[in-house]
Amino acid sequence: MSEPQTPDWVRDAVFYQIFPDRFARSLTVPKPSHLDEWGSPPTYHGYQGGDLIGVVERLDYLVELGVNALYFTPVFQSASNHRYHTHDYEKVDPMLGGNAALSRLLEEAHSRGMKVVLDGVFNHASRGFFQFHDILENGANAAYIDWFTVHSYPLNAYDSMNQPGYQAWWNLHALPKFNVKNPEVREFLLGIGRKWIDLGIDGWRLDVANEIDDDSFWQEFRRRVRGGNPDAYIVGEVWGEAKRWLQGDMWDAVMNYLFTRACIAFFIGESVDRGELGRTSFHTLDPIGAPAFRHALETMIGHYHPNVNAAQMNLLDSHDMPRFLTLAQGDKSALRLATLFQMTYTGAPSIYYGDEIGMPGKHDPDNRRAFPWYTPESWDRDLLHDFQRYIALRRTRPALRRGSFQILLAQDDVLAHARQLGSETVVVTINTSRSTRRVDIPLSGLVPEGSGFDEVWTHETHRSEGDHLRGVELAPRSGRVFATPLPS
Amino acid sequence: MSEPQTPDWVRDAVFYQIFPDRFARSLTVPKPSHLDEWGSPPTYHGYQGGDLIGVVERLDYLVELGVNALYFTPVFQSASNHRYHTHDYEKVDPMLGGNAALSRLLEEAHSRGMKVVLDGVFNHASRGFFQFHDILENGANAAYIDWFTVHSYPLNAYDSMNQPGYQAWWNLHALPKFNVKNPEVREFLLGIGRKWIDLGIDGWRLDVANEIDDDSFWQEFRRRVRGGNPDAYIVGEVWGEAKRWLQGDMWDAVMNYLFTRACIAFFIGESVDRGELGRTSFHTLDPIGAPAFRHALETMIGHYHPNVNAAQMNLLDSHDMPRFLTLAQGDKSALRLATLFQMTYTGAPSIYYGDEIGMPGKHDPDNRRAFPWYTPESWDRDLLHDFQRYIALRRTRPALRRGSFQILLAQDDVLAHARQLGSETVVVTINTSRSTRRVDIPLSGLVPEGSGFDEVWTHETHRSEGDHLRGVELAPRSGRVFATPLPS
Repeated sequence: MSEPQTPDWVRDAVFYQIFPDRFARSLTVPKPSHLDEWGSPPTYHGYQGGDLIGVVERLDYLVELGVNALYFTPVFQSASNHRYHTHDYEKVDPMLGGNAALSRLLEEAHSRGMKVVLDGVFNHASRGFFQFHDILENGANAAYIDWFTVHSYPLNAYDSMNQPGYQAWWNLHALPKFNVKNPEVREFLLGIGRKWIDLGIDGWRLDVANEIDDDSFWQEFRRRVRGGNPDAYIVGEVWGEAKRWLQGDMWDAVMNYLFTRACIAFFIGESVDRGELGRTSFHTLDPIGAPAFRHALETMIGHYHPNVNAAQMNLLDSHDMPRFLTLAQGDKSALRLATLFQMTYTGAPSIYYGDEIGMPGKHDPDNRRAFPWYTPESWDRDLLHDFQRYIALRRTRPALRRGSFQILLAQDDVLAHARQLGSETVVVTINTSRSTRRVDIPLSGLVPEGSGFDEVWTHETHRSEGDHLRGVELAPRSGRVFATPLPS
Repeated sequence: MSEPQTPDWVRDAVFYQIFPDRFARSLTVPKPSHLDEWGSPPTYHGYQGGDLIGVVERLDYLVELGVNALYFTPVFQSASNHRYHTHDYEKVDPMLGGNAALSRLLEEAHSRGMKVVLDGVFNHASRGFFQFHDILENGANAAYIDWFTVHSYPLNAYDSMNQPGYQAWWNLHALPKFNVKNPEVREFLLGIGRKWIDLGIDGWRLDVANEIDDDSFWQEFRRRVRGGNPDAYIVGEVWGEAKRWLQGDMWDAVMNYLFTRACIAFFIGESVDRGELGRTSFHTLDPIGAPAFRHALETMIGHYHPNVNAAQMNLLDSHDMPRFLTLAQGDKSALRLATLFQMTYTGAPSIYYGDEIGMPGKHDPDNRRAFPWYTPESWDRDLLHDFQRYIALRRTRPALRRGSFQILLAQDDVLAHARQLGSETVVVTINTSRSTRRVDIPLSGLVPEGSGFDEVWTHETHRSEGDHLRGVELAPRSGRVFATPLPS
């Protein structure tokens, strides 16, 4: 197989993940009357009424934050507040403003140079999905009987005391699993994959994508999607190693939960809320120091081609986890250090909405609170400012987005790594300990002896000596970034 | 209230009612694989796979038959072969070819001067309909809780052993009744009413329309629909007298089942299949002679303004009844005489698909057989020819479509009626008895003494004498039509 080709723009992307019911609510989108109050404690079944025009109205905030790509959890018509239970793949949910709102969002986002990736739930439908509903209504006479895998009639779709009677995701009655062996189903799903690309989206995040255990499906998916947009980004949800799908013929990348895992262990470490951690798919994680973190990163990078690593979606948390800050029991230094690392690492960072202002959130549903637009006093503006700085750093420094990655030092609680692109070299060093550290950072021959580095933000000058940056003092729980001048 | 304004084109319309799953199936529309064979005995739950492109492919047949308006039972996405259980009002069912197929049909029909009326099921949805599904999924937390009338949670939508727990049509679990008092629901339904008008349909047939017991709803419906197309036809399904809705501010007309009823009693009479009749909404009907038929017609006409009578949809049968021919136990003379009468009466005739070739059909589902395109030897071509003649007569004679209506003679088994428009007079006389009758038909001063009448089809000439057509001999179970020359 030739080398994987991943979309070039993803190297420059900083994603912002939006949970549409909770990010922003526009007064211009008509809503059903029976909604929970904006900002009330999230429940499993209540809606708070966010919508896509609300996102349009907040695009300037996102531009100011510095992100340039949006990843939306599902937006298609669904009778669930998270919209993973798809009722209709051809319609944006009416509560989100319908298809017209998505078109408007695409137009407004694109005009700001911002990409838009949607969440595709192709493994399973919902029990209200038309072709499944046909089986519910007509039993063995249904026209679409082989779109799903039925074991016995009548189905017990709404009878939780009995087995569903059909193949379902995690045997959940609500989520009948598609029979992708059926060519009609393939054609339907592949058509959906293409349809929204043709309508202007920039890529797909694929929900529980490894559970469609059929490489030819994903190969054809890639052909269809790329046929519509050769730059479309295809990113699967896989929580572990994902070589099988990242050889260049299926997806471009995965949501990099291996990265998440390593960051929790290293940047949060001992402070982790073990109760909340126990509710994640990680269950337990031993705290690690810099050497083990280095090992985790190098193992991860070793799995994939550099073109894949450069396109990975690196996240610290998501709608499927407690927020990073909550896992850290409120220790904002952990979030700051992890974000600094995320913004200087290879692959596309993804920020879960609200992390940047210090929103807390335990496991689902608490991690899906409404963005507090109307209580700005609750925002941590210092944190927001640091997010802006870290994002801006990435966006102004090509080496951070496209450069090589190399670990220079991994000792006790101190990590130093370099990114290099042509004559541009950036050195990042992070001290996760609660004490001051003073280190000599080996430069591994990356720069000529006596090279000058600017410390970003302070603009102090440092010079390499004997292939080291010597005597670098690191305050407790802090990081410093040194960079050669940008080529003019 | 000013006088009702009904669409002018309906005066010239001859409708053909199509049950989309059974009229015609195109090879060009992809279908799910699990369908019943075309022409197999209809079942409650099986599909035979008719579609709208199939109709396009048969338009020339319909032009040859002479009809110029199509009324379709529901075409929107639905998990029922009759599609009265609407899953999505914004989508033409994918098995029918989807929205694109309807657009093509509208284009092709309109290019032949043919109108298209769709069936609107606005009283109730289906249990797969999105906003109802939301209540099924989320119970008291549902956003759309007040779109329906819920009595208790959880709903028993799929638990036929218990009461549904919500208001439903005939208390059927499958058909939750809309709460049209909710402004969101009104806006939704009125929007649907308008949407398809804007997409080019020529009118709406309104299912169980009297069950939306809310005049202001229908008044607003008329405003919205007519706002989109001032010539749109609005015809309600009401089986009895319908003055309430036909004052000019709600509907234009109803499906004229009072006409149907009178025609069964008079033209079929004693021969009626009482078992099948007992399964209709008529239950029983005593056979009647010409005087009682006259009384029924005059009562019916007396209910409404002439503009309404001229726009009524006069039908002999439908998808909700055994076919007329089957009620007549195969007596084709009854169908011929009734059709001759229908084509010469005031109001728009409507032919249920297949009646014209003598298709039989008992009560639902047998009355929904597939049109036998592939067994043309089963067609009664003489009957088809007579349908063509009767339809052509109506279409060439303005007096039959727009003229006054007057009964000239109603005695024993013989009826004579006249239609007059300006200088054009048409006299129709029908003998329903099994013997030859010889009658003098009084002309009631409609024409000057000695006026010449051509007998249509034979072109024999007759002259009025002493304000009568004298000595008109009528073979058993036959009709004759006499007409003054068309103004040149």
